[in-house]
Amino acid sequence: MLPFPRVSIIGLGLIGSSVARAVKANMPDVRITGYDADPAVRDRAREIGLCDDVTDLPGTAVMDAGLVILCVPVGAMGAVAHEMRADLPADAIISDVGSCKQSVAEALAEALPGAVIIPAHPVAGTEKSGPDAGFATLFKGRWCILTPPVDAPEVAVEALKSFWQRLGADIEIMDARHHDLVLAITSHLPHLIAYTIVGTADELGEVTQSEVIKYSAGGFRDFTRIAASDPVMWRDVFLNNKEAVLEMLQRFSEDLTALQRAIRYGKGDELETLFNRTRDIRRSIVEQGQDDDAPDFGRRH
Amino acid sequence: MLPFPRVSIIGLGLIGSSVARAVKANMPDVRITGYDADPAVRDRAREIGLCDDVTDLPGTAVMDAGLVILCVPVGAMGAVAHEMRADLPADAIISDVGSCKQSVAEALAEALPGAVIIPAHPVAGTEKSGPDAGFATLFKGRWCILTPPVDAPEVAVEALKSFWQRLGADIEIMDARHHDLVLAITSHLPHLIAYTIVGTADELGEVTQSEVIKYSAGGFRDFTRIAASDPVMWRDVFLNNKEAVLEMLQRFSEDLTALQRAIRYGKGDELETLFNRTRDIRRSIVEQGQDDDAPDFGRRH
Repeated sequence: MLPFPRVSIIGLGLIGSSVARAVKANMPDVRITGYDADPAVRDRAREIGLCDDVTDLPGTAVMDAGLVILCVPVGAMGAVAHEMRADLPADAIISDVGSCKQSVAEALAEALPGAVIIPAHPVAGTEKSGPDAGFATLFKGRWCILTPPVDAPEVAVEALKSFWQRLGADIEIMDARHHDLVLAITSHLPHLIAYTIVGTADELGEVTQSEVIKYSAGGFRDFTRIAASDPVMWRDVFLNNKEAVLEMLQRFSEDLTALQRAIRYGKGDELETLFNRTRDIRRSIVEQGQDDDAPDFGRRH
Repeated sequence: MLPFPRVSIIGLGLIGSSVARAVKANMPDVRITGYDADPAVRDRAREIGLCDDVTDLPGTAVMDAGLVILCVPVGAMGAVAHEMRADLPADAIISDVGSCKQSVAEALAEALPGAVIIPAHPVAGTEKSGPDAGFATLFKGRWCILTPPVDAPEVAVEALKSFWQRLGADIEIMDARHHDLVLAITSHLPHLIAYTIVGTADELGEVTQSEVIKYSAGGFRDFTRIAASDPVMWRDVFLNNKEAVLEMLQRFSEDLTALQRAIRYGKGDELETLFNRTRDIRRSIVEQGQDDDAPDFGRRH
């Protein structure tokens, strides 16, 4: 039994197009309708046959949907939900893939009063953007976090859970506030720091940009990958998970100051103790299948 | 014409063992003698036939060498050079692979007065350590920076250059001070920041370590790779390139504070402008062959 015979995907970038491809690969009988605000993306989606149908308005895309998944930057969720409001079937489940959950839940509840809204967040992605960047196995073995409101119908939660499981994801249920805190440290702060250091390196007088690029294999290039992620998506994440991001940033800054002090006063033991501890965390991540053990991420040598 | 018919490698970890393998692969007629302070590493090097001979004392390893390469943590360079001093042939060239060049140049000059010392730094590596972690192609297409003192004999510099070129590296000549500044931003600061954030994530009360590990695919896992690098090697790097690291750290902290402020006051434009700029830098690194363009570093999906 298919959890949803008709699915609408609003936003056909990396994640939206990966959902489309994963649905086609795992549930070929599901009919997918897609929409994107950018006409060039709609054209491209049609060219590569991403969906069964791509519409020019969000309302048309959701008209007969059982599940509508919003795959747009978190700051755009409310507006696009509002646009499709009149055409939304009464029994449709509205979900999304955004990286902050409290702000999205609020925006959707405001735009779609009375609708069944179950926010979700598949913790997966790459630094690439656009409809060509997606792939069907993106969610395989990754976690998808659902943050249903307390009054969400159990049957709707189960259907959404089953949908993501069929795309290969493992499911976790969490409250939206806790989600935002967890993601602030595992995703938002790492992106913020990567963006910062790549910016810092770009502005040095004594060391040229060409030197930074040339010698980036010493570690810097690892940071540039996530600092190449979609600028609008990430702008919205920071603005919409402000409180948790600022809280984690404060803790990070304190720890960095402590390390700075250890370097200044030559406290080698403190450094070594920390560096052994961080090594253990890497080991756990690899053991739990959340990263590859291949040296250097398996880059070709 | 081989630049050096006999090469000694002191320290048989990731880099030393990669040099040994690369020499065997590219200059099979060169005789390699190796030494490591750790008896278990010496035994393992013998078992896997890393060198033509592995000796139990550093002096014995260098007795007939034309080139001696020190592949030990930068804080250990002076002591091991002192140990081999009595056995060093008068015409041998002493080099190293350390990630700081001023402190190593000073330590070697002090330990080996009158010797021909040409410090070097192949900008390459992985997060793995030990004699089994090395591989012959590690230096292929990577930069090797030589920092010869002003009075270094030209013929010695040329021979060392030719040696690294045969291992696949591209060569750059730089003064030691500038090297230390460039590497502080392209390698040392990224490692410091990665160690810090992984440490921060490990100490949160509200978010458990198991949650951090579970949801690390959101970006955090990228940082754990370089935070899994050799603790002693990195302790020594920070202590021996203190001035440049603290300088770069100061600039990074200022930039991070500016970004923090932009988030707090909702300045989305500032964020977006930076995020577009950092994306361009990633593009340049890929274009110049210093990283792979495969999404997500080419991790399997």
